[in-house]
Amino acid sequence: MSMAEPVAEPFRIGLLGHGTVGGAFETLLAQRADNIAALTGLCPEISGVLTRSRGDFDEILERSDLIVELIGGLDPARDYVLRAMRAGRHVVTANKQLLSHHGEELWGVARVHGVQLRFEASVAGVVPVIRVLQESLAGAHVDRIHGIVNGTTNYILTEMSRTGCSYESALKDAQRLGYAEADPTDDVNGKDAAAKMAILARLAFDTPVHIDQVTYEGIELITADDMEYAHELGLGLKLIGTAERIDGKLAVRVHPAFLYEGHPLASVHGPFNAITVESEAITEITMSGPGAGGPQTASAVLGDVISAMIPPASTPETTQALEIVDDVQSAFYLHMEVADRPGVLASVAHVLGEEGASIKSVVQKGLGERARLVMVVHPLLESSFFAAVQRIAELDFLRSPPRAIRVIEEHFG
Amino acid sequence: MSMAEPVAEPFRIGLLGHGTVGGAFETLLAQRADNIAALTGLCPEISGVLTRSRGDFDEILERSDLIVELIGGLDPARDYVLRAMRAGRHVVTANKQLLSHHGEELWGVARVHGVQLRFEASVAGVVPVIRVLQESLAGAHVDRIHGIVNGTTNYILTEMSRTGCSYESALKDAQRLGYAEADPTDDVNGKDAAAKMAILARLAFDTPVHIDQVTYEGIELITADDMEYAHELGLGLKLIGTAERIDGKLAVRVHPAFLYEGHPLASVHGPFNAITVESEAITEITMSGPGAGGPQTASAVLGDVISAMIPPASTPETTQALEIVDDVQSAFYLHMEVADRPGVLASVAHVLGEEGASIKSVVQKGLGERARLVMVVHPLLESSFFAAVQRIAELDFLRSPPRAIRVIEEHFG
Repeated sequence: MSMAEPVAEPFRIGLLGHGTVGGAFETLLAQRADNIAALTGLCPEISGVLTRSRGDFDEILERSDLIVELIGGLDPARDYVLRAMRAGRHVVTANKQLLSHHGEELWGVARVHGVQLRFEASVAGVVPVIRVLQESLAGAHVDRIHGIVNGTTNYILTEMSRTGCSYESALKDAQRLGYAEADPTDDVNGKDAAAKMAILARLAFDTPVHIDQVTYEGIELITADDMEYAHELGLGLKLIGTAERIDGKLAVRVHPAFLYEGHPLASVHGPFNAITVESEAITEITMSGPGAGGPQTASAVLGDVISAMIPPASTPETTQALEIVDDVQSAFYLHMEVADRPGVLASVAHVLGEEGASIKSVVQKGLGERARLVMVVHPLLESSFFAAVQRIAELDFLRSPPRAIRVIEEHFG
Repeated sequence: MSMAEPVAEPFRIGLLGHGTVGGAFETLLAQRADNIAALTGLCPEISGVLTRSRGDFDEILERSDLIVELIGGLDPARDYVLRAMRAGRHVVTANKQLLSHHGEELWGVARVHGVQLRFEASVAGVVPVIRVLQESLAGAHVDRIHGIVNGTTNYILTEMSRTGCSYESALKDAQRLGYAEADPTDDVNGKDAAAKMAILARLAFDTPVHIDQVTYEGIELITADDMEYAHELGLGLKLIGTAERIDGKLAVRVHPAFLYEGHPLASVHGPFNAITVESEAITEITMSGPGAGGPQTASAVLGDVISAMIPPASTPETTQALEIVDDVQSAFYLHMEVADRPGVLASVAHVLGEEGASIKSVVQKGLGERARLVMVVHPLLESSFFAAVQRIAELDFLRSPPRAIRVIEEHFG
């Protein structure tokens, strides 16, 4: 018989709402519970779930250390969040409507009751813009924030630009693929982005900002024709949220805008979100990532929950000890100067084939008596590739040592 | 006579090193001291500065709450940081060499003595990758990190790609512009990037990683010819640091690599740094910004100092109350369907001119009896532009209401 292992004390999380994000959060928490316990010394567990059809708020509150609010909307979310904080519980929420309407009230109650109110998931999903504004840039004098903070409209605009299709057809595509809801009104008219910009502006400019103070326009009137001219003029079209300091005042707005190609937001495509923060001292920081999605948003919620469990004042001891390896799979570019005579390409290809390298593309150029042979090979174990290169270097038609550079494959699709 | 204002308690910062970053930190701290006092309730001040020629470490330590270490290198930085933490002081450092060699020892001492050791500025300047890995992604199962973490080499490769010049010539340019040091060895051979990847890998994979375990290659052997083939093959060339999980092991490496155009790091140019973190639940997050520079690195140090002053568990009350405005300057795209007859462009241009709008570019297309006139105008106050549009809408040759979309000007240079 052995002594019982020391058991980590539980950290009890009451979950309000069990839709896409709530379900993903519960799954993710279960997967990561052991790691979180190692990191924080506390073992996180779901102490209760409230949905329309099950659970009682007061009972869940009673047995929770922290409340995760994923109901959305103003009521009853506001009441639950206020009651939780007044009862001394930390709250993590993804609710942009709630914060853009009642932020000052909620943050005030959090301060008075000494609890944490965290809301990373309320803006741009897993993109850590809230934490970066509140912590990394706490001392910065921000001049401007530009952002793509609505994935539905960015998906629609990307498709219109890519295929030349109409707004209506791109919207239908987005609905079919789950990037737009059955009622997409608040996404396409800019209101969703306006709520997010109100929250970002509040944090970046240290000024109370209510959603009603944000001017917004949507993308409903953008035509395929606008996209065609944009291409001709070297522009991309995005729904852009902006908060900027102008003559000591603050302008917060959402509208479609053309961006020149060099702009850091011009290359953000599909359902991704991105935010650029500009300040004289920092120049600018851009952050991008998926702006929505169950597991992605749940990851942002989980980061907040862990922060509330233990303020990360120190770098914890490592709990993993992964073995460190250096022979991995890579694709390669291979550059050879060779004698310009028959059979050269065949010999090189033969050696590569014997070592397991498969050729993806070849460019050969004659240079008088010599030729330059450049190829890209598909990924293979680097030791195998270098064995092939060593054999190729010894071939009598090589005129200088072959040169190899790794190729990183296209990331998306 | 008035009552004395309540005076915020001082927070004393001992500064080790007074080069580019140290000087910029002192300036930035002075500029932002009032805001930081409002935010934290403590008034930050420099309690002493240690350089080769002035200051005494023990005296500075005695009168400091926190030590900022900007000396760089292993000795005497390691000794100072250890002594500061053992004396119960928080430490903020930008020293990648120190952490990639002695990280486990230093983090261990910080835990034992219950002090904070923060090091955002040690990797990628103001890009908040350390905080995001340690806090936002504390619960994430990271699969891979890809990064451009050395601005000198990224500047050189960007110039080689842009101008077709040789490595040697791009390096000279970089030295002339201050993007490369007189002795650029550790930048161009990949060692600087290797130190940064050791730190990132430690945090992301929860495994001790020493710089000697990082395989690295530099960019010294890259030729203009490689760049030419890269263009032909649709590739960009970057110095890439990678840390990735492979079959339960960890590979950490730095090497030049070709990237396909769609890769999020392919569009990072000049002295900028960028890091992409990939994980199944989050998909990926990319962060980019200036990787070096005095004020930028000093901003990262300041963010760490503020975090050490007060753990930001709540959203502070606003201290600003900027007025919110909605009439701002914008450039515009203006789309008009008009009768195809002489004088139309002149009339439109006349109205625009009267309202102060200056035309940047025009595209006109005949469509039988109609023509389509599309122009971009330089920035002007939106109210003025809309006044012009209203007047244009009333011109008798207009065939449908004019359409206006904002244009965001090119961001860089």
